[in-house]
Amino acid sequence: MPHIVNRRDLDFLLFECFDAEALFETERYQGLDRGMVEGMLDIAEAIAEEKYLPCAAALDAHEPTFANGQAQVIPQVGEALQAYADAGFFAAGFDRAHGGLQLPLIVTMAINGIFTSANLGIANYAFLTIANANLIATFGTEEQQKLFLPPMLEGRWFGTMCLSEPQAGSSLSDIRTCAVPRQDGSYSITGTKMWISGGDHEISENIVHLVLARTPDAPAGVKGISLFIVPKRKVGADGTVGERNGVVLAGLNHKLGQRGITNCLLNFGEDGESVGYLVGELNNGLGQMFHMMNEARISVGHASVMSALAGYLYSLDYARSRPQGRRANGKSPLAPQVPIIEHADVKRMLMAQKAAVEGAQALLTYCALLVDRQKASSDSAERADLGLLLDLLTPIAKSWPSEYCLEANKWAIQVLGGYGYTRDYPVERYYRDNRLNHIHEGTFGIQAIDLLGRKVRMHDGRALALLLEQIRATIAEARTYAELPSEAALLEAAVLALEEATAVVLSESDLEVGLANATIYLDAFGHVVIGWFWLQQAMLATEALERGTTEIAFYSGKVAACRYFFRHELPLVHARFALVGSLDRTCLEAGSDWFTGT
Amino acid sequence: MPHIVNRRDLDFLLFECFDAEALFETERYQGLDRGMVEGMLDIAEAIAEEKYLPCAAALDAHEPTFANGQAQVIPQVGEALQAYADAGFFAAGFDRAHGGLQLPLIVTMAINGIFTSANLGIANYAFLTIANANLIATFGTEEQQKLFLPPMLEGRWFGTMCLSEPQAGSSLSDIRTCAVPRQDGSYSITGTKMWISGGDHEISENIVHLVLARTPDAPAGVKGISLFIVPKRKVGADGTVGERNGVVLAGLNHKLGQRGITNCLLNFGEDGESVGYLVGELNNGLGQMFHMMNEARISVGHASVMSALAGYLYSLDYARSRPQGRRANGKSPLAPQVPIIEHADVKRMLMAQKAAVEGAQALLTYCALLVDRQKASSDSAERADLGLLLDLLTPIAKSWPSEYCLEANKWAIQVLGGYGYTRDYPVERYYRDNRLNHIHEGTFGIQAIDLLGRKVRMHDGRALALLLEQIRATIAEARTYAELPSEAALLEAAVLALEEATAVVLSESDLEVGLANATIYLDAFGHVVIGWFWLQQAMLATEALERGTTEIAFYSGKVAACRYFFRHELPLVHARFALVGSLDRTCLEAGSDWFTGT
Repeated sequence: MPHIVNRRDLDFLLFECFDAEALFETERYQGLDRGMVEGMLDIAEAIAEEKYLPCAAALDAHEPTFANGQAQVIPQVGEALQAYADAGFFAAGFDRAHGGLQLPLIVTMAINGIFTSANLGIANYAFLTIANANLIATFGTEEQQKLFLPPMLEGRWFGTMCLSEPQAGSSLSDIRTCAVPRQDGSYSITGTKMWISGGDHEISENIVHLVLARTPDAPAGVKGISLFIVPKRKVGADGTVGERNGVVLAGLNHKLGQRGITNCLLNFGEDGESVGYLVGELNNGLGQMFHMMNEARISVGHASVMSALAGYLYSLDYARSRPQGRRANGKSPLAPQVPIIEHADVKRMLMAQKAAVEGAQALLTYCALLVDRQKASSDSAERADLGLLLDLLTPIAKSWPSEYCLEANKWAIQVLGGYGYTRDYPVERYYRDNRLNHIHEGTFGIQAIDLLGRKVRMHDGRALALLLEQIRATIAEARTYAELPSEAALLEAAVLALEEATAVVLSESDLEVGLANATIYLDAFGHVVIGWFWLQQAMLATEALERGTTEIAFYSGKVAACRYFFRHELPLVHARFALVGSLDRTCLEAGSDWFTGT
Repeated sequence: MPHIVNRRDLDFLLFECFDAEALFETERYQGLDRGMVEGMLDIAEAIAEEKYLPCAAALDAHEPTFANGQAQVIPQVGEALQAYADAGFFAAGFDRAHGGLQLPLIVTMAINGIFTSANLGIANYAFLTIANANLIATFGTEEQQKLFLPPMLEGRWFGTMCLSEPQAGSSLSDIRTCAVPRQDGSYSITGTKMWISGGDHEISENIVHLVLARTPDAPAGVKGISLFIVPKRKVGADGTVGERNGVVLAGLNHKLGQRGITNCLLNFGEDGESVGYLVGELNNGLGQMFHMMNEARISVGHASVMSALAGYLYSLDYARSRPQGRRANGKSPLAPQVPIIEHADVKRMLMAQKAAVEGAQALLTYCALLVDRQKASSDSAERADLGLLLDLLTPIAKSWPSEYCLEANKWAIQVLGGYGYTRDYPVERYYRDNRLNHIHEGTFGIQAIDLLGRKVRMHDGRALALLLEQIRATIAEARTYAELPSEAALLEAAVLALEEATAVVLSESDLEVGLANATIYLDAFGHVVIGWFWLQQAMLATEALERGTTEIAFYSGKVAACRYFFRHELPLVHARFALVGSLDRTCLEAGSDWFTGT
């Protein structure tokens, strides 16, 4: 039995927690209804099970190879992506004006999550293409849109994002790739880009690279970065694909996980000229790239949840079927062994996974809803506030799952014991896959500085105030439930601790001191946010149980997972916020020779 | 530059923290001195660097294969183990009466740690052999000792431990392997054993399996398990190695990590009879096997520390040499990039590794010292108390590193960023290797039940009382240091929380309820113990700084790591002990259909 999605939980998220149907009543998304969404999820599930899941282990075992100057990928990858394209999923989220279905992100995220869970490597080729096309749809000229969007939305051309260079990973201000103006208004691109996912392959007819580079007279640092479209193969004015455009595959990275997608070192302008086309205005490239980057960050968080979901569902099935040992109160060796799910600690490992996966999935779905409500709203003040909330939550949505859904994958392995440590079972692969999410599209530490150094400060703290106002409204509502007063009180205390720590940091004049424990702050802040989503889920579940639902197990599980999170996890934030609030300098002031004494 | 050992820290542990020289003054270990130990460490380091380290990546990439019914291992493995044998390290820890050097475990652990750090896979062949021979030296008949010990101590025959079966992993009471008496007093062994590390290979002349099995009329459960020596090849009365003994390699496991050592499914009595020799008395096998198992548990904890040490030292070196970004207070893009160790969060990731590695290494070294002091003592009451302390600490020594040194490996990857996620750098391998330590030789959950269900209760809680008495003595001493009052107070509070939680659990009559959160208890108990060792290290370092040591960086690092642990980690125990003390039933009472609602 495949374990790639829990449709019941997806329904709960979309239609009970986040009321997607209200969104379908807005002008932008009208015409859509719940039945249509469920039909699309059915199709996604069928394709994912038929084309994505069966080759996931093989794709991991036979990672892309470098031969004849090109990356070679097993043929199932192209076949799977063709099925995805045939179903119209590349275009699903794009505006009708661009030839898309104009589906809200809350729906496309649910659809795409099924593919990610089934086969992360294959899914990522499509997601990078979609994010890339989104950027062109937002900032590209009409001509660029006409030329590039149709083949990308049909899934015939794929896309990448080219930011990092060997000397500039997290530090984008140090990129050196050079863009020299040509007479026809295009640019000649020279330089080396690394960590380029999907950077080379022969799956699609063309690859559209979005490349950060500097023009010769650009100012130093991030203010001198521009953004260029650099196709792998030249594109005629009529859209025909021509000869190579001087982009050379210099090497493939061999990764711990996520082996399904090529990860490339690319040299631009090495074998002939690489012609690029400026996107938007000169020296405005980083801001535009962050349009794609922010989308990618949400996508990374979501991928992390999906890897954890796959491990959770697999380990749950195993725990129900594997007999081993007896319960603590009945240890007679003559009694039959019990399924391991009967052991309290196995339940704990499953509950830890459930709390992380379903808590984080709620956060990601909420982020998608913010995007959709922004697009659907005609009120500019409301749009601005929704944007602020999304900006604030993005580093958390990217980072919290990368830590706690990785932890969930650790527990999935543990449920399977020795079997989980072998490559005969998929759980170790999910663990390897998930480890990347801590790193790419801005490391955990970079996200932390973004949150504490920028996001909680922007607009005089308005984003944070908006979020806490919402959380406090949930707490007030939870107090009216007879079953949830202690949870309401625990979240209230956590919010107070968050506010106190934030106030201390914001009043610290030395930025380096204030940010020294930003990672701890991000971690604890994430717990508060996930606690908020669990409290929301528990309220809905409590209501359902009170009104006599027949789905007692489902809703009881929601209440139990909320309790788990509030008892095992949320109390940890106090030690963490206290550390942040103490402006502790233990790490900051450690000498670089203190670690080993030499 | 190899990164397999920090000799300065090893000296600190052996000769400053744990006063190995006092041990050398006892009758049992007399003749040994610090210079000799350092000489042996030099030899170990040289062999490890020359023979173990260079093939570690290759051994991981080319894991053992199954061909012609046998496990095939790359030739460097045998060469490395030959060098280890030639240096006399197989015999180093054995009594002189058995032909050994009678080195204390505190010394052999230090020696062997260097090999583990360099190449875990190769090192494990030797350690299993040594643990196996130790069991035979303790429980074997004189004849068995004469026959098996000399070739094992010379490193010509290797050893394994065969406990698990496909239907009996954690649940040893369910093993089915059968031992039928033969006329000559030996037994005919039939059954399947799995997860057998070093279970097959052609590196050594013979393999000595120690096998748990049941005789036909044995009582059910653990009281009916006996222990047998079953050599891979038959052994003549004069020690000559003869034909195969019916032990058939049925399969190799392909693991996430620790790929260097074969991990086998073995069928006994499949291809001809497997003749076995009873060790000790019938139905007493599990207790004897736990002699080896307890040693293996300490060894697993130590291996976990060593994988983390290797990652720590590697990432430290990288952090010092990789330029990237600028400090928060000086972000001009015209300024040169700084080595990443200048960033507070990179220091935090290094400090987290240091705190875990050096804290856990102190715990493991202390456990070794308990073994040695037990052996050296002529006072039976003292021996009993030392044994109780060791029994109590064993589940912690096995488990705490498997969690927090794995976490250290996670941070080592993170320090390297994208590079850390590639197989071009060793840190991802250490992470994969370390993940097993959570599982084998008794999972984390099994250790937790051992600690809370048995160890803190035994002898009316005497073991716990002895430990807490020692911790409180350290706290009292720390209060006399002007720099450490807050650390003393924090540890005191943590001990109180431990006592309270323990008292609640011990007064709970429903064992299943009491043990429901045993894993959380083990985790927090481990933090208290590691905090204790950090406080000890900080006192020594403070003294050294006060008396004007020239090694200011080394000792300042010790104080800083103690502070780190006490501020970032120790405060977390309160939430955990509170959960345990609340006898929380959230996980215990979750229905097995609550997780997905079906």
